[in-house]
Amino acid sequence: MSDDKKWVYSFHEGDGSDKRLLGGKGANLCEMTQMGLRVPPGFIITTEACLHTLDDPRQEFPEQLMDQVREQMARLEKETGRGFGQADNPLLVSVRSGSAISMPGMMDTILNLGLNSDTLQGLIEQTNNERFGYDSYRRFIQLFGKVAMGIADEHFDEAFEAVKRQVGANNDVELTGEDLRRITTVFFDVVQRQAGRPFPLDVYEQLEWSIRAVFKSWMGKRAVDYRRQFNVTPDIAHGTAVNICTMVFGNMGNDGATGVGFTRNPATGENVMYGEYLTNAQGEDVVAGIRTPKPVVQMAEEMPEIYRQLEDLRNRLESHYREVQDFEYTVENGVLYCLQTRNGKMNAAARVRTAVEMAAQGLLTREEALLRVDPEQLDQLLHPRLDPSFEATPLADGLPASPGAASGRVVFDADRAEMLARDGEKLILVREETKPDDIHGFFAAQGVLTSRGGKTSHAAVVARGMGKPCVAGAGGISVDVRSREARVGERVLHEGDVITIDGGTGKVYEGEIPTVPADFTSELRTLLDWADATARLCVLANADTPEDARRARELGARGIGLCRTERMFNAQDRLPLVLEMILAEDEDKRKQALDRLLPIQREDFKSMFQTMSPYPVTVRLLDPPIHEFLPTERELEEELQDLHQLRGNIRGMTTLMQSLRTTSPELIGTANLPAFMQEGGVEYVERVITHKRRMLSKVRELFEINPMLGHRGVRLGITFPEIYEMQIRAVLEAAAECMQQGTEVHAEIMVPQVCTAQELLRVKVYVDRISQTVQETFKLKVNFKFGTMIEVVRACMRARNLAEVAEFFSFGTNDLTQATFSFSREDAENKFLPFYNENGILQDNPFEVLDVKGVGQLMETTVKWGRESRPDLIVGICGEQGGHPASIRFLHAAGLDYVSCSALRVPIARLAAAQAKLRESEYDAG
Amino acid sequence: MSDDKKWVYSFHEGDGSDKRLLGGKGANLCEMTQMGLRVPPGFIITTEACLHTLDDPRQEFPEQLMDQVREQMARLEKETGRGFGQADNPLLVSVRSGSAISMPGMMDTILNLGLNSDTLQGLIEQTNNERFGYDSYRRFIQLFGKVAMGIADEHFDEAFEAVKRQVGANNDVELTGEDLRRITTVFFDVVQRQAGRPFPLDVYEQLEWSIRAVFKSWMGKRAVDYRRQFNVTPDIAHGTAVNICTMVFGNMGNDGATGVGFTRNPATGENVMYGEYLTNAQGEDVVAGIRTPKPVVQMAEEMPEIYRQLEDLRNRLESHYREVQDFEYTVENGVLYCLQTRNGKMNAAARVRTAVEMAAQGLLTREEALLRVDPEQLDQLLHPRLDPSFEATPLADGLPASPGAASGRVVFDADRAEMLARDGEKLILVREETKPDDIHGFFAAQGVLTSRGGKTSHAAVVARGMGKPCVAGAGGISVDVRSREARVGERVLHEGDVITIDGGTGKVYEGEIPTVPADFTSELRTLLDWADATARLCVLANADTPEDARRARELGARGIGLCRTERMFNAQDRLPLVLEMILAEDEDKRKQALDRLLPIQREDFKSMFQTMSPYPVTVRLLDPPIHEFLPTERELEEELQDLHQLRGNIRGMTTLMQSLRTTSPELIGTANLPAFMQEGGVEYVERVITHKRRMLSKVRELFEINPMLGHRGVRLGITFPEIYEMQIRAVLEAAAECMQQGTEVHAEIMVPQVCTAQELLRVKVYVDRISQTVQETFKLKVNFKFGTMIEVVRACMRARNLAEVAEFFSFGTNDLTQATFSFSREDAENKFLPFYNENGILQDNPFEVLDVKGVGQLMETTVKWGRESRPDLIVGICGEQGGHPASIRFLHAAGLDYVSCSALRVPIARLAAAQAKLRESEYDAG
Repeated sequence: MSDDKKWVYSFHEGDGSDKRLLGGKGANLCEMTQMGLRVPPGFIITTEACLHTLDDPRQEFPEQLMDQVREQMARLEKETGRGFGQADNPLLVSVRSGSAISMPGMMDTILNLGLNSDTLQGLIEQTNNERFGYDSYRRFIQLFGKVAMGIADEHFDEAFEAVKRQVGANNDVELTGEDLRRITTVFFDVVQRQAGRPFPLDVYEQLEWSIRAVFKSWMGKRAVDYRRQFNVTPDIAHGTAVNICTMVFGNMGNDGATGVGFTRNPATGENVMYGEYLTNAQGEDVVAGIRTPKPVVQMAEEMPEIYRQLEDLRNRLESHYREVQDFEYTVENGVLYCLQTRNGKMNAAARVRTAVEMAAQGLLTREEALLRVDPEQLDQLLHPRLDPSFEATPLADGLPASPGAASGRVVFDADRAEMLARDGEKLILVREETKPDDIHGFFAAQGVLTSRGGKTSHAAVVARGMGKPCVAGAGGISVDVRSREARVGERVLHEGDVITIDGGTGKVYEGEIPTVPADFTSELRTLLDWADATARLCVLANADTPEDARRARELGARGIGLCRTERMFNAQDRLPLVLEMILAEDEDKRKQALDRLLPIQREDFKSMFQTMSPYPVTVRLLDPPIHEFLPTERELEEELQDLHQLRGNIRGMTTLMQSLRTTSPELIGTANLPAFMQEGGVEYVERVITHKRRMLSKVRELFEINPMLGHRGVRLGITFPEIYEMQIRAVLEAAAECMQQGTEVHAEIMVPQVCTAQELLRVKVYVDRISQTVQETFKLKVNFKFGTMIEVVRACMRARNLAEVAEFFSFGTNDLTQATFSFSREDAENKFLPFYNENGILQDNPFEVLDVKGVGQLMETTVKWGRESRPDLIVGICGEQGGHPASIRFLHAAGLDYVSCSALRVPIARLAAAQAKLRESEYDAG
Repeated sequence: MSDDKKWVYSFHEGDGSDKRLLGGKGANLCEMTQMGLRVPPGFIITTEACLHTLDDPRQEFPEQLMDQVREQMARLEKETGRGFGQADNPLLVSVRSGSAISMPGMMDTILNLGLNSDTLQGLIEQTNNERFGYDSYRRFIQLFGKVAMGIADEHFDEAFEAVKRQVGANNDVELTGEDLRRITTVFFDVVQRQAGRPFPLDVYEQLEWSIRAVFKSWMGKRAVDYRRQFNVTPDIAHGTAVNICTMVFGNMGNDGATGVGFTRNPATGENVMYGEYLTNAQGEDVVAGIRTPKPVVQMAEEMPEIYRQLEDLRNRLESHYREVQDFEYTVENGVLYCLQTRNGKMNAAARVRTAVEMAAQGLLTREEALLRVDPEQLDQLLHPRLDPSFEATPLADGLPASPGAASGRVVFDADRAEMLARDGEKLILVREETKPDDIHGFFAAQGVLTSRGGKTSHAAVVARGMGKPCVAGAGGISVDVRSREARVGERVLHEGDVITIDGGTGKVYEGEIPTVPADFTSELRTLLDWADATARLCVLANADTPEDARRARELGARGIGLCRTERMFNAQDRLPLVLEMILAEDEDKRKQALDRLLPIQREDFKSMFQTMSPYPVTVRLLDPPIHEFLPTERELEEELQDLHQLRGNIRGMTTLMQSLRTTSPELIGTANLPAFMQEGGVEYVERVITHKRRMLSKVRELFEINPMLGHRGVRLGITFPEIYEMQIRAVLEAAAECMQQGTEVHAEIMVPQVCTAQELLRVKVYVDRISQTVQETFKLKVNFKFGTMIEVVRACMRARNLAEVAEFFSFGTNDLTQATFSFSREDAENKFLPFYNENGILQDNPFEVLDVKGVGQLMETTVKWGRESRPDLIVGICGEQGGHPASIRFLHAAGLDYVSCSALRVPIARLAAAQAKLRESEYDAG
């Protein structure tokens, strides 16, 4: 570096947009100064000076640095008319660290630098407050001792407590000015003893040490850890600046004050100034909590002129920064100084409201407003949350499996839940884990709690689909369904006890905790309307039932991108039919069962079409392996054991009764065994045994080593054509009936697990045949499309051929991610994926955030090849990642037409889709 | 078609290379005629005429066809000086079908067409053999009646038998000319009765009907089925031609003869004429087996002039066709006619020998010789086979899981096998299924037979690896290990009974069946040396033990492309250490177990390096999930149940003994319980229970839903670094020790299941650290490379990044195929893949033949991207498909450097690699 390098900038000089050089705080001080706001004079030592020093082997300051600092100090002295180290009229300064982004672990503020035994007297005279003077002095000595000289707080604290004991003070407020003066003397001793040298009374020495301390704090452990964890790379923030600013005092009389303010209410977004202040006080008094600050509206009466200035400040800040500001100010001798400003942190509701209102005011364009809101933050507005003001200790911890909070009485099985719900009870279904035949329990309950399973367990997936809160895998809870109780350590929960679960955090509480309802405000509606008008990607929803579809539509879904027909199979009235179909010994028997399922599925689809008209509804044909509808081998074996025992018992009982009847009829009298235990009981049990044996042998027959990769999806649809034929017929008949009634229908039939065009062609043969029959019957042309899931890698490789048959592609990125990584999601998330994420082997969990570099690469190729053979091919995604903002950004860039996600992610996706469009020029997949 | 279209070609006109138009047989007749060989005059009706007729709605012949036929017949009359239908000097012809490839189900030959009651007399005069005349006539009537008039054979057969009964003949030979004459009369009645019209005596009517019959036979059921099954598409053969050829008679006196011949010995390949003949006989006499044909050498003495002509014919055929010919001839009145020729079918040994010798003779170039042998056929030469001349009825049927045949005594467990093998017994290990801890049984046995599991079961994979025969999944056999017997229906096999298995067909026989040994001839060596000189692809072998490596080297492998270290873990002396490692409760305990495995692995590797020097040995680090080394949950549960029962029994026994000792000591006397049942027995059992419980809880902890996609390969290597560190150290130390002893070593360390460069970088850190230590210790630079398996789709997508770290890629196409298709191999092969293949949804089983369109597409992209970042990247394949000729053709085209396959596939791969190079210009992946 050359000798004449500029290391120091006054607030008048610094470029407010260069946060990397000046730090965020410093840049804002320059900006405000140059806007003409009244900011106490000061200057900034650049981050370059910091890095230069840290790079130096002997950690020496760059040459000229201190010269430039002295020049600036001289300027401050001139501007303020005070002298640095001047006893009667001392110039005091604050020293703060400040990098491009704020970072915990870097040096705190040192106030009142420039104090020593001489200048203290000047301060006392100026503030006319001896106690304040000594209090400031002893704080300065401790803070400086700690950060600049490395003396642990405990040494100062011990000494401080000793004095308090001596003078009999219970708390700090009781200490007099004299007591505090004594403490400063004691603190000098502490410094001498601990540092082996006296406290520096030379003010430039103080300044130099402070600067050095700020520089060093950049490499402090917490700051380094923070940068690693949050991936703060040198292009984002590199080194810390040092802000040196003239002290102003709000405690020099009743024309002084200090306060903090927001330009709008950060809790509600309301367009009023918000904040608190104290008269005749310093900043730390507000924090210390000794005096109660007053709401800022009161200032209008108490200090009307200052209030007017404050309103003016607020307006100037907002019109300059065009974002809600969080600012600090001090009034010294009736003059308002702005000490700091930054973008205000707000909750989601306020963030949305201010963005929309600022756009309405003309402060922002609609595009800017859309970019102001983090889509993920909207999640807050879509679920009931626990009242944040309510404090409670959780009873147990689980995984946050489906967001939202709910309270209700504990219930341990689905049947009972259904019964109790009829009486209007609010319930939480508590299970070890859930299964398809618990589905009516999900409908009945407010929320679900399981002690086993992860974020992709049945409970989690179903609850998310229904938008109900779920805490999964709360391992600390042991559930005993038979005795209807659950144990958490020593605590026992019985059926009927009230608990509260928070699916956003995974916490479980005893009793009812108040919740804040979901908040789909009119401003949010406005913002999302703007989003829809901006976005190119269309947002659809994954929904399996008409209820899901209705909610999705309310949240703005423009169609159903994935309707999983097997979810429809899981309802109470269907599962027995599905079992019958699976257990059928031949095609005829299977067709009989399917014939009875047909009208049920048709009604489902009609209801979906009606709900979503005129938007499309995409029906995916049966996907999972059929053994998923059966109990496990072990369960059946246990049931059979019980049944055999039961049969033995009945036999024993009837034999006993028979022999008693002859030998001692008096013992029986008119008594009789319950009906099922009389003759015939054994036969009944044996029929059950036969049935269960059939199921068991079917379960064994269907066993697969890697069920993910087995006999499922289209493979099933081709080997047992009657299943798909039934579903296709149900879709097309439902569509025809709706159309006959004047409803606009866009049916889309989608085939899962396809790996070759031959498979699609086979299914298309069914579709062509059935549609012809249906169209002849109804005498109308059914409006439908035929397409395929893309979830098998080979389908990507064969995209050109598939697109010759399919009118649309829908990426199933859950399965596609599994196949691309050769990770089984459940196994990976339980075994090694957390390790991979923690160790930076993979940045994200690819099942939550789309893996752009691998899966995304494959998708881009697929889209390209697919459109080569069918230029108007519609391409979407229906995997879980389709609702994730970062993934949406990629999907927009990759040229998809739509994303489909769970209903409650729809608003998030709509906003993210708009942002993807607005930011497309900056996009770089890396 | 225009009227003057040419539908008929004489043998002088036809283009011998146009088999599609003239059929194979016809084209050859033209070729021979035009070569100047003496062929009876004749002509061909084209396949186009056939198709034209079949396409015609009324199935009429094309106009002009019969006119053109008549023209040709007139020419034949002129050439032969005979008349078609002329009583005293009749021209008789044969009529044969003939498409481009021979096909069962098409019409057989009709001989002697042109016979009727008039011309018969001429034939009798010419042959001077009344019996022959009538016999020919009755055969002609029946054959014509059947093929041209659709009369079932049974009607003729019944009539024939009736006459035989009448005349008291036991067999046909006893029938006199007069008897046969009566039969012709009876046959006329049959025709009249069955067809409702008389047998056509007009010779042109006969000819027309015959032509029509040949045309129709093209669409016969068997022919159609054949074309479907063997995928004979119209570009290969389309329609059948009709060959009409003058009859010549070898039975007109002692200067006549008939015979069949091969230009070389088709069983051995020896360069001598081979064949049989009969004097004064017709072709069908050779077939009928009434007279015993004489070997052709005898003709040299019996008919020296004809023999000279035959030698001449043989030489002219071979030098023209440059391929061994299978030909038919007849000598009429001392004149040799060649009736037919085609390429000779030969076994593998003859095929190889003739190819090499023809090249040595200068008949072929080496390149042509290489192309003459079907690589798959070499498999015959590499395994012992059952003696084909031995007839036996199989006892049971299973899957042909590992080729070769073996006989031996039945043994039901591995320990016993090991024991008996020490006594020199030849054994067949018979199990329900096998497991890693049966591995010593594989070494001890000649072959393996299992009653469960498929071609990828443990038994099959291990046996193939060792090159031992295996029949798997012979479901008809039920094995009872405890009682040491196996049941096949009623038959019971006991330990010690001799059986024979044929792993090439899946058949199991009782007793010992003679086998023909493997036949790695010097000609094969020569051919493969030429192959190596021609091929660009290098052929390596997959080998897990030094014995495997030795065999691979003998078979010409130029290195080891895949050494699966986990196979080394499976040996008896290692498995306990591996278990200790898995059950270790902390890293220290695990390291202790690994420290004991280290020297064992190091010795393995040293031995591999020494065996293969100077070729490379590629060591794959541990791949499978560690739970594969443990018993299943169910097995352990059952063992624990048994142990609990045992504990109860011991307790009961000791209590009983104690009480007897007091109450009735006389009952005991000096008797005592076996030691382990005395005090201490319970404790011992409880220790075992504790150990098994630990295993059980580990098994449960390690349980995975989709083990294929779980915690395995590099994922394991990163989360438990000490395992890979041990293996890397073992490889590098082994290499260093070998190098110190002057052995040239090329060690290659290969990481499995990689999906991101981060994983490779992590393992590379271990490699760098350990290699540094080893090099310092041994004071030499270890010669090794570091590379990765490519078996995860994401690795393909990230090939550019992986190639920055890896020096070589090795495609693991078994896993890659599973991932690309989302098929679990075992599940797919058991459930839907056969259906997919049968129904043409997929052409081949992609686990046997590389799926060029999907997996291949992915591989090509990977190679391209990988070499973009490392131009000298070495790329190979070590999946099972690497030994498959069709796959090798693709792999050559895709630019791979090597294929690695099981040892016994090495010769096949070497030849296939040469052929891939020779045919590269024709290659089209489609």
